[in-house]
Amino acid sequence: MAARCAADRKDSRVTDLQRRLTREIAAIRAIDCHSHVPPESPHARGLADLLGYHYYTELAHSAGMPAEAVADGTSAEGRTAEMVARLATIDNTVQYGWLMEALAELFAFRADRLTAKNWPELDQAIARAGEDDRRYREVLASANLEKVFLTNTFDEDLSRVDREVFVPCLRTDDLVFGLADADVRRRLAVKTGVEVASADDLRDAVRWLMRYFVQHGAGSAAISLPPDFVPAAPDEAASDRALARAAAGKELSADDRRTLAVFAFDALAAACRQFRKPFQLMIGVLRNVYPSGVAGGRDLLSKRGTLEQYAGLFRRHAEVDFTVSVLSRAWAHELATFAWIFPNVKPSGHWWYLNVPVHIEYELRARLEAVPKGKLIGYYSDMYKVEFGLPKFNMYRRVLARVLAREFVEEGRMSEETAVATARLLLRENPQRIFGV
Amino acid sequence: MAARCAADRKDSRVTDLQRRLTREIAAIRAIDCHSHVPPESPHARGLADLLGYHYYTELAHSAGMPAEAVADGTSAEGRTAEMVARLATIDNTVQYGWLMEALAELFAFRADRLTAKNWPELDQAIARAGEDDRRYREVLASANLEKVFLTNTFDEDLSRVDREVFVPCLRTDDLVFGLADADVRRRLAVKTGVEVASADDLRDAVRWLMRYFVQHGAGSAAISLPPDFVPAAPDEAASDRALARAAAGKELSADDRRTLAVFAFDALAAACRQFRKPFQLMIGVLRNVYPSGVAGGRDLLSKRGTLEQYAGLFRRHAEVDFTVSVLSRAWAHELATFAWIFPNVKPSGHWWYLNVPVHIEYELRARLEAVPKGKLIGYYSDMYKVEFGLPKFNMYRRVLARVLAREFVEEGRMSEETAVATARLLLRENPQRIFGV
Amino acid sequence: MAARCAADRKDSRVTDLQRRLTREIAAIRAIDCHSHVPPESPHARGLADLLGYHYYTELAHSAGMPAEAVADGTSAEGRTAEMVARLATIDNTVQYGWLMEALAELFAFRADRLTAKNWPELDQAIARAGEDDRRYREVLASANLEKVFLTNTFDEDLSRVDREVFVPCLRTDDLVFGLADADVRRRLAVKTGVEVASADDLRDAVRWLMRYFVQHGAGSAAISLPPDFVPAAPDEAASDRALARAAAGKELSADDRRTLAVFAFDALAAACRQFRKPFQLMIGVLRNVYPSGVAGGRDLLSKRGTLEQYAGLFRRHAEVDFTVSVLSRAWAHELATFAWIFPNVKPSGHWWYLNVPVHIEYELRARLEAVPKGKLIGYYSDMYKVEFGLPKFNMYRRVLARVLAREFVEEGRMSEETAVATARLLLRENPQRIFGV
Repeated sequence: MAARCAADRKDSRVTDLQRRLTREIAAIRAIDCHSHVPPESPHARGLADLLGYHYYTELAHSAGMPAEAVADGTSAEGRTAEMVARLATIDNTVQYGWLMEALAELFAFRADRLTAKNWPELDQAIARAGEDDRRYREVLASANLEKVFLTNTFDEDLSRVDREVFVPCLRTDDLVFGLADADVRRRLAVKTGVEVASADDLRDAVRWLMRYFVQHGAGSAAISLPPDFVPAAPDEAASDRALARAAAGKELSADDRRTLAVFAFDALAAACRQFRKPFQLMIGVLRNVYPSGVAGGRDLLSKRGTLEQYAGLFRRHAEVDFTVSVLSRAWAHELATFAWIFPNVKPSGHWWYLNVPVHIEYELRARLEAVPKGKLIGYYSDMYKVEFGLPKFNMYRRVLARVLAREFVEEGRMSEETAVATARLLLRENPQRIFGV
Repeated sequence: MAARCAADRKDSRVTDLQRRLTREIAAIRAIDCHSHVPPESPHARGLADLLGYHYYTELAHSAGMPAEAVADGTSAEGRTAEMVARLATIDNTVQYGWLMEALAELFAFRADRLTAKNWPELDQAIARAGEDDRRYREVLASANLEKVFLTNTFDEDLSRVDREVFVPCLRTDDLVFGLADADVRRRLAVKTGVEVASADDLRDAVRWLMRYFVQHGAGSAAISLPPDFVPAAPDEAASDRALARAAAGKELSADDRRTLAVFAFDALAAACRQFRKPFQLMIGVLRNVYPSGVAGGRDLLSKRGTLEQYAGLFRRHAEVDFTVSVLSRAWAHELATFAWIFPNVKPSGHWWYLNVPVHIEYELRARLEAVPKGKLIGYYSDMYKVEFGLPKFNMYRRVLARVLAREFVEEGRMSEETAVATARLLLRENPQRIFGV
Repeated sequence: MAARCAADRKDSRVTDLQRRLTREIAAIRAIDCHSHVPPESPHARGLADLLGYHYYTELAHSAGMPAEAVADGTSAEGRTAEMVARLATIDNTVQYGWLMEALAELFAFRADRLTAKNWPELDQAIARAGEDDRRYREVLASANLEKVFLTNTFDEDLSRVDREVFVPCLRTDDLVFGLADADVRRRLAVKTGVEVASADDLRDAVRWLMRYFVQHGAGSAAISLPPDFVPAAPDEAASDRALARAAAGKELSADDRRTLAVFAFDALAAACRQFRKPFQLMIGVLRNVYPSGVAGGRDLLSKRGTLEQYAGLFRRHAEVDFTVSVLSRAWAHELATFAWIFPNVKPSGHWWYLNVPVHIEYELRARLEAVPKGKLIGYYSDMYKVEFGLPKFNMYRRVLARVLAREFVEEGRMSEETAVATARLLLRENPQRIFGV
């Protein structure tokens, strides 16, 4: 974290205690339980791979860059030049801070800013480093990350995943919300051998997938959910009828789709129970609210709904660990309180639009003050290239050190040693134990 | 507060000003306007009485302890041993902090932790202290609490309450939500002499109860409410019909029950007006969301609803003081703003799932910055045994000192003397004046 | 800001860095993009003009003053004496702080408090200063405000506005929510020459107004909206029918009114596009929730609804800048995230019930951490007399300095120079560029 040049000590409220905690927390080898790193191309092979992260393109677009400037069909060089020229418009954001910290720490980039003049050399340095097919291992070591979870579609080939550092995770959005789609059912049949035409078939296929994933080292299933999704006890008969209609090539009604989503979701929870794996719920996303945005920058959130919608699920599947993230600040208090009461609800990280220091600081303190420490999954990166693991986790490590120093040790509520041990739970031991990795 | 051993001064952002304010605020003799202390057994007679507090059993259960381990039928010794073994899983929480501070300050417990080895001796010390029937007075003196409100069911015998330190309070949940229950109506008839079979009867019974309570020194009526309750002008005719049906032994519909709840709630507000007592509204609880939980650890909250639901009530009963607590953080801003505008809305304390320093600090600052100081009821303990008054109020006193120091005195918005005077309003003078005690 | 006398340095967490930033930010000549200053009487001509601000009367009423004490028909002297006697009940609030800072800085008032004895002399000093018809220019210079936006009804005479310091703004509430009112349509016809009896007429009238306002230097259109308003694509045919009914003197149904509101709102957005001016949306107010309150102190807010209601509008009018304020804390996260994604959504200031340091500090940090800096409109005063520009902007300048010092410079995320440059964007350069003033 040397890249950051803070105010003089006399001009800062950062105490020596906080500095020590920051150093000790930086030394914890962490587990990252959610990312979108593509196993076949985990590290950057050029600056465009970093500047193409949706945070940069969407913020630059939000600040005035036409979406077309970085659309499909543009050259990597063109996109990079465009993005470099736009960075000054977003240099106040924490996301910009991630980029500059990653460049400094991983590529020894020493300039204050990216410019039209200095980026080509950096681009080449990234390309050169990227030529080493195992470069991602070095990058993860620099970030002090031991394991990184992937997000795998259900028919992805897991045999080539580098399981030394990566952990597969069954992404289930397609299975829950896409069963009306003939192509999804076809892919499912290809993968599992089950032509799904009944509720039983669907349960079989889901179990097959979960077994396959667990055999390949998977740590969990995962899904992202809209704010108005309401899990419920599955309706076997209605699901049978809907799947029969789908198998017969008929169009499904909105009711049918909802019935199937509820059924598939519950079948996945049951499979998690059978194979003793947690189900990662990421609740609250509204898809494609801004269709004219850049790729990856079209989704938003809504404060609608309540975690109460999930109470029945948590009761019905009491033996399944649900590691839960929410996308709206309005839901955060409910999450902490449900985790306080339900043994199987475990707050997980700070997702996307809540992955900003101001919100992390508040929610982290709230969780540390009232949820048993062994239930807290501190953080995950949600990254698409391993290079972002370092600055994202460093951001979290710093906030964690700050909260532990200012709210716990300074106030006499924890010793310094206990604070470090607590940090170790959040960053490492809890995800190890909960996900069995 | 000597029990807390904070960081070295050079490692802490706690200023001498904050330390002085903490001391001065600790010296204020406070009024506790809401508790569940049982008047016939107000203090602990063994460690099980402290470890049996739902915060400990529910958090231990949330962290992995089977609910059966502390269920009815288990021995006090077994429950205590179990809970002692579980405490390490929740030692990060503020609730754990309450326990350790109470043990240190009230029972001179000096060990760092409760262990299988040291708890029996402590248990005996608590039992010995508890043998003195007036022990609770000492405990309250240690907590610097002058008066503690009780929560009495409507047919409780108030003649034996020690009114030197306790203040009765009419808990009205049964009357509002339980009138369909023949047993509630029977108990009401036994107590008041009124067989309730009409709206007029109900008003009479409610007035009788309020008079009885006020004659026995009651400070207020109180009720806890679900997030979707909507007070409204009472429907006299429909209430007459519903009560007649109930009196005739018929089952009441959901509509009938709602009609009666609205009617009884309004009749209680009217009785508060007649007897010039505040109505304590505690809004937002969802009962029995997690039925497999430990006793007292099954309720939760929802962010649904809005304080707007109560605007008509506040208008209709302009002469009644409503001291209002909310359970969801999502409602907190509405509470502060309604108190800013309505003369008869008075924010009260930090209830249950909001009784955590992070939330107290934010909401306390929000109230102090924009609600007239004379309207703020700082805190209440909500405790079941008097021993928890000390650490809970100390937690609040510390947060209050911190907010006054950091946001008001340091920023030049208040003198140190005014800060202490403001604290005295919140802890003592406002509850004294508003509840007339 | 010399009026504030803070704690000794050793008793304060305020660093020299923060003090320097406070000074540098005080030196930025700001633009105030929303006020209710009446152009014909912009400055106070007596103490009653200051104490009559709704914040003081509503808070004093909330703390016990009868609303009648300051109702129409009372004398200025009587109102002033009453309010002076009540001020002690609200002296903890930030609003009281505004008053005392304005008196000290603008009228050299040196006493600690207003009293029955000292107010008459102050009243005379204010009256004497107010006799200078250009007094408001001095006041704005003292506040370091270069321009102040007004809020003009659509038929206000703009020719006499002092455009050296004031910027007209078309307030559109009447046009959107009042078209069913024959008097509104009559005033519209008088002003624009268009007798509105069809959707086309309405569009013409709206365009006429927007042209007239822009020709007279207007910076934007503006509207305040209830939490349940849902903009939608306009229904031309239904609007035609509703306007024909209205023109024929018929009563309009609730549906008709809604149809017209949606149509007029969209027509205004289209006019903003045509004349390249932003539309200021102020979302979330509930009118007349407390009708017995003092004038200006009867409205409140509700957490109902979601900014999602506006997503279609933001898409449909992609070329219009919407500068958006929300009234409920529950909406604040949505606002920051919508501004993060939509290029044409720009968070604006901290409105009314969120214009309190605790909320400003949190939301300002949230915006600075994740919204491009060029999109943030830092603050506006919402004042009714120019005297309040100074303390309100000073409050914001101080919070801004605190956030920049503590969260950005101390943490090594920004240099001190960049922090000042960022403050200049928020206070001056962004409103200049976005509103074209």
